[in-house]
Amino acid sequence: MAEISVELTKTPKKKPQDEHHLPFGDIFTDHMFLMDYDEGQGWHDARIVPYGPLPIDPAAMVLHYAQEVFEGLKAYKTQDGRILLFRPEENFKRMNVSNERLCIPPIDPAFMIEALNKLILVEKDWVPSLEGTSLYIRPFIIATDPHLGVRPSHHYYFIVILCPVGAYYPEGLNPVKIYVETNYVRTVKGGMGFAKTGGNYAASLKAQDEAHEQEYTQVLWLDGVERKYVEEVGTMNVFFQINGTVVTPALQGSILSGITRKSTIEMLRYWGVPVEERRITIDEIAQVADEGHLDEAFGTGTAAVISPIGELKWGEKHMVINSGEIGPLSHRLYDTLTGIQWGKHPDPLHWTHEVK
Amino acid sequence: MAEISVELTKTPKKKPQDEHHLPFGDIFTDHMFLMDYDEGQGWHDARIVPYGPLPIDPAAMVLHYAQEVFEGLKAYKTQDGRILLFRPEENFKRMNVSNERLCIPPIDPAFMIEALNKLILVEKDWVPSLEGTSLYIRPFIIATDPHLGVRPSHHYYFIVILCPVGAYYPEGLNPVKIYVETNYVRTVKGGMGFAKTGGNYAASLKAQDEAHEQEYTQVLWLDGVERKYVEEVGTMNVFFQINGTVVTPALQGSILSGITRKSTIEMLRYWGVPVEERRITIDEIAQVADEGHLDEAFGTGTAAVISPIGELKWGEKHMVINSGEIGPLSHRLYDTLTGIQWGKHPDPLHWTHEVK
Ligand SMILES: Cc1ncc(COP(=O)(O)O)c(C=O)c1O
Ligand SMILES: Cc1ncc(COP(=O)(O)O)c(C=O)c1O
Repeated sequence: MAEISVELTKTPKKKPQDEHHLPFGDIFTDHMFLMDYDEGQGWHDARIVPYGPLPIDPAAMVLHYAQEVFEGLKAYKTQDGRILLFRPEENFKRMNVSNERLCIPPIDPAFMIEALNKLILVEKDWVPSLEGTSLYIRPFIIATDPHLGVRPSHHYYFIVILCPVGAYYPEGLNPVKIYVETNYVRTVKGGMGFAKTGGNYAASLKAQDEAHEQEYTQVLWLDGVERKYVEEVGTMNVFFQINGTVVTPALQGSILSGITRKSTIEMLRYWGVPVEERRITIDEIAQVADEGHLDEAFGTGTAAVISPIGELKWGEKHMVINSGEIGPLSHRLYDTLTGIQWGKHPDPLHWTHEVK
Repeated sequence: MAEISVELTKTPKKKPQDEHHLPFGDIFTDHMFLMDYDEGQGWHDARIVPYGPLPIDPAAMVLHYAQEVFEGLKAYKTQDGRILLFRPEENFKRMNVSNERLCIPPIDPAFMIEALNKLILVEKDWVPSLEGTSLYIRPFIIATDPHLGVRPSHHYYFIVILCPVGAYYPEGLNPVKIYVETNYVRTVKGGMGFAKTGGNYAASLKAQDEAHEQEYTQVLWLDGVERKYVEEVGTMNVFFQINGTVVTPALQGSILSGITRKSTIEMLRYWGVPVEERRITIDEIAQVADEGHLDEAFGTGTAAVISPIGELKWGEKHMVINSGEIGPLSHRLYDTLTGIQWGKHPDPLHWTHEVK
């Protein structure tokens, strides 16, 4: 699998001129990485080809049984023109965790990082350089056997596509309003919650729509069994600072093991801030909020990095956190993590990987 | 949306010669039905076109977020050459239930039945006629917006593909061995269990693989909350006859409302056999099995119609049902339902729909 062939496009697209108004997830670069898997043969034919539609059989299993996994990470351009990735090995490790749950053959993380480097070098002029912008990277695997009947596929595509994306907070870090979901469930222990796979997101659409109607940005999921333990938010993990101690839900099979979550925990420990991974009930949060001990709350994820939470709505209860303002800890974490990602800060925990 | 255009293939495939050895889900006919949805415009451009690969953008939402629903039904050829569908309006009603859960715009069931009739007439020579064979029909909807970011898509394809399939029991009705799953969970109340959507099947692959390794055909799912209530089997609903009374799990949001299940209940009532829809624990099943009161157990679904269960394995416990033989009630139901489907029996409840 050593060779990665490259076929360059003959019709390059116009790159977006206005980096101040890049949308998220709508503009794709000129090339993509593609690789096939066939039973008996393994992963093969690694190649960089022009971005374009894939001919997919209407019976392809992914379209019926959602045998699919994905990842999401970003490449950042530094002021001196280098391109950095943030802990990419973690994404490919997690992809193999998802693969395992979905009965998809594993991929070699080292090879994937090599392929990703090569793809990004081909597309290096697509990495935006305005402060806060980045190149969003979407590796994904889909089951393509044309077969009706539930079983793991014998053929897969592994694909990487790239998207220049704008600053998540063009007007500065605005705290979000979150709706605690008590009706719908995203996933449950024994299910696929710890995997990054389409079905979990499909399950979330309806609740998200209803939250939007009430002008909440995202939903906070509760566990599917007792409906009282806090799990995660849309596409973010969640943290609370209670009386100075930072707490976040423990990983127990139903939530995604976020890489920003992991980095946040590691950075807090590095700073000496007390942090606990444990089960947290929504009642506990409501109680400490009432008592004035909920210092801050924030979400963590690749897209927004740190997203301060200004309000939580749980049934009839509205909890306003830190007067709806961003708190000092959220701010420090945001500045530090993004500073490391864009190469403006030192990187004491060796998280960045330079593309070259 | 009145017009359905037809473009016939110029390269018809060879039809399978040997109807004794038709596989399930691997052979597709010459044409498919296709229709687009665009926000603002609704469903449009209904057309029958040659079967073939769809050009799908690698960013199409279905490949990432599994926003997809499907249905499954069959067309049967009668001895006098007519083609019958079995309660097709139920499938399109259920598809709209799935659509609602997945934030997909509804379709008009009457129009879909018209489209299906037209497609089957184009493909009428593909409907096999050997006893027990049929034409499997797979309507499905996929989200095709090229967009990364979790939200409902603005564009969809509705597609119908067709598969000639063999007799499910070429050597006669053989009872299956079923493995009671205690580790993995398929779905939970508040989730998508009642919808026919890819994510539910993706979640089931791993458990099914492990059951196969132990030489069990399928898994019997327990509820995701208390892990003690019986839900359904792989792609079948489940029934037990206990001391003469037939019981089946009530529909409470986490299991699929099977059309064969519904028809089984209606036929039992028509016959005057007592039938209950209620919650059933696996302990209750084990207990009545021990006491010798578990007369029969069977699965119901479009593929196998009635599938007698000869053994249930639950942890260390093996429950052999009716000495591993098909029981009289399962047999009567199988003969009656399949007799109606293939037009050999009278159809007292008016379930069949002739394609013309
Ligand atoms: C469900 C879910 N939880 C959490 C996260 C945060 O993970 P990460 O920090 O790796 O982006 C994401 C986004 O990737 C997600 O989709
Ligand atoms: C999960 C599940 N349960 C039950 C069934 C049985 O439903 P039906 O009788 O409509 O085929 C199916 C198959 O369609 C299924 O996929």
